[in-house]
Amino acid sequence: MLVLHVTIHVLPEHVDAFRAATLDNAWHSLQEPGVARFDVLQQEDDPTRFVLVEAYRDADAPAAHKETAHYLRWRDTVAPMMAEPRRGVRCTALTPAPLG
Amino acid sequence: MLVLHVTIHVLPEHVDAFRAATLDNAWHSLQEPGVARFDVLQQEDDPTRFVLVEAYRDADAPAAHKETAHYLRWRDTVAPMMAEPRRGVRCTALTPAPLG
Repeated sequence: MLVLHVTIHVLPEHVDAFRAATLDNAWHSLQEPGVARFDVLQQEDDPTRFVLVEAYRDADAPAAHKETAHYLRWRDTVAPMMAEPRRGVRCTALTPAPLG
Repeated sequence: MLVLHVTIHVLPEHVDAFRAATLDNAWHSLQEPGVARFDVLQQEDDPTRFVLVEAYRDADAPAAHKETAHYLRWRDTVAPMMAEPRRGVRCTALTPAPLG
């Protein structure tokens, strides 16, 4: 299974707004048929750092996600909140248990 | 929920052995009552890079995990396979859907 792993560093003054916008995006993304997981993790010792772990059921699902209204709204809302460009890495899940 | 997020970079000649040892550890870890998830992700464009996403049900579970025979076996087996020290970051899961 394809997992997109996104590391994000936000400006301190935008942490609360980023959390709210990202949880909204996560909730809507979980309704997409191609999305098995959409986890939002916040680093304990530095709350300006987040990780999104997005598990997709098929190869077309990431592109479909990027066309949704909730993704586009999130992308535009959080753009000015970034401390540095976010970094996405495509991974293959090897886990013995199924994701989702 | 506490999520331990571990990034790992292995030497190219040890990728297959690292995968095997880590999947063994993941399978056994998923039998621990305190472990909700133990995902093993391998980076698509650089297969020497892995991420473990370990979700724990309570604050004591990570310490309990580190005392298990399968963790200690994994730790000793993979120690000589590392290209650089692995990096663990403690995170809080904010995700709207429950993990596990």
